[in-house]
Amino acid sequence: MKRVMLIVAYDGTDYCGWQVQNNGDTIEGELNKALSSLLKEEITVIGASRTDSGVHALGNVAVFDTEARMPAEKMAYALNSRLPEDIRVQRSFQVADDFHPRKASCIKTYEYRILNREFELPGERLNSHFFRKKLDVAKMREACLPFLGEHDFKSFCSIHTQAETTVRTIYSLDVIREGDMIRIRVTGNGFLYNMVRILAGTLINVGFGVTDPAEIPGMIEARDRQAAGPTAPAKGLTLIKMEYPEHPEFPGQKS
Amino acid sequence: MKRVMLIVAYDGTDYCGWQVQNNGDTIEGELNKALSSLLKEEITVIGASRTDSGVHALGNVAVFDTEARMPAEKMAYALNSRLPEDIRVQRSFQVADDFHPRKASCIKTYEYRILNREFELPGERLNSHFFRKKLDVAKMREACLPFLGEHDFKSFCSIHTQAETTVRTIYSLDVIREGDMIRIRVTGNGFLYNMVRILAGTLINVGFGVTDPAEIPGMIEARDRQAAGPTAPAKGLTLIKMEYPEHPEFPGQKS
Repeated sequence: MKRVMLIVAYDGTDYCGWQVQNNGDTIEGELNKALSSLLKEEITVIGASRTDSGVHALGNVAVFDTEARMPAEKMAYALNSRLPEDIRVQRSFQVADDFHPRKASCIKTYEYRILNREFELPGERLNSHFFRKKLDVAKMREACLPFLGEHDFKSFCSIHTQAETTVRTIYSLDVIREGDMIRIRVTGNGFLYNMVRILAGTLINVGFGVTDPAEIPGMIEARDRQAAGPTAPAKGLTLIKMEYPEHPEFPGQKS
Repeated sequence: MKRVMLIVAYDGTDYCGWQVQNNGDTIEGELNKALSSLLKEEITVIGASRTDSGVHALGNVAVFDTEARMPAEKMAYALNSRLPEDIRVQRSFQVADDFHPRKASCIKTYEYRILNREFELPGERLNSHFFRKKLDVAKMREACLPFLGEHDFKSFCSIHTQAETTVRTIYSLDVIREGDMIRIRVTGNGFLYNMVRILAGTLINVGFGVTDPAEIPGMIEARDRQAAGPTAPAKGLTLIKMEYPEHPEFPGQKS
């Protein structure tokens, strides 16, 4: 038996999120199907980040166990020819038999994209949130500072969470404008249910002038979902990468 | 009566090109439908560039005549709410009654995008051509030089052309790599049927080592489609903008 890790990119537009469910296609379901067909055994992957319906990824992580003789490194290529074109494995490699992608400590990076111009651009419609009124990026950046560090992010979490604790650490949070595209980049040791989308919705309110940056600390302290801004639409969100600092041996990981 | 110009952006993935045809949806057809419904009269647009099936645009141009009282500038917004989400008018304004977008002299800019990395990226699949083997961009840039200026581009034109002359002028042609994305940008006074896609296919052959940059002048001189490289796939191509140098009064035009 060996445990194999996959780095997976997908366009989440046509999926009901990562996790297998009864009605609708999921990323996890497509991976299980392609892997079981390729390796001729029943495979069930364990995903690192169970992204919501419509959310995209450049580097989500999944592991599975197999008895197959095929070298782990060869699986990415073989899998891609069996996956739909909106899911592509970027890398496959063997990991320790006891490695668990959700239990191992991990640094996640997400990006939320906002197209901020007068009219929509069809080529950007699937992976950005369109916002017509001009956003003040300087104000949005100012509003990022109070989020940095360890906080109880209960205000920035869906009330449907099942998390045991709502304390998380944000290592970096920045807002960058490139032409008409505004990118919110956030890195942390984990994110609560809808947390990045609520952060994005709150920062949009700041950029639009509905919220003042000075109100952010009070929003965090409130520990009440109603204190924060709205949940921004799923299609603007992409899981960029996952790093496992205790596993510098993984390809592409920092030591 | 007034003549109105539209600047139109679209994702060509789900269309049989610009021009109305019997089987399949077209950009022109969708514009005619939305305009006729909005203005309550039968509208038929005249397009500047009749892009092929699967080709995209940021700035194609169409004009039409109307008796409607609605100010031309207001039409973009009103039209967009009646158009499918993969077509968006970027601007609308009145032009001279005798302005014809194909007869007026015009400078067109196209971009061909090539995703050059080991595995496809789902988020880029609709508007780039995926090419796995490493391309040599320095060689591709070297191969651009012989194309500059006025030439008979018969070798770089589909044999199905109906053009009276195959002489065209290329003002600029460059190849730029940004990470894994290679962009071929070309500006000229007009392009023959499939010309940019054949240019792209030929430059890909150069980047891959199948063709040497020194062979390009001979390809042009041959005036034979078989002398040039293959026609690269439509989905990598975007019509970026059209400039009418004799009409510096158009919004966004250089004087």
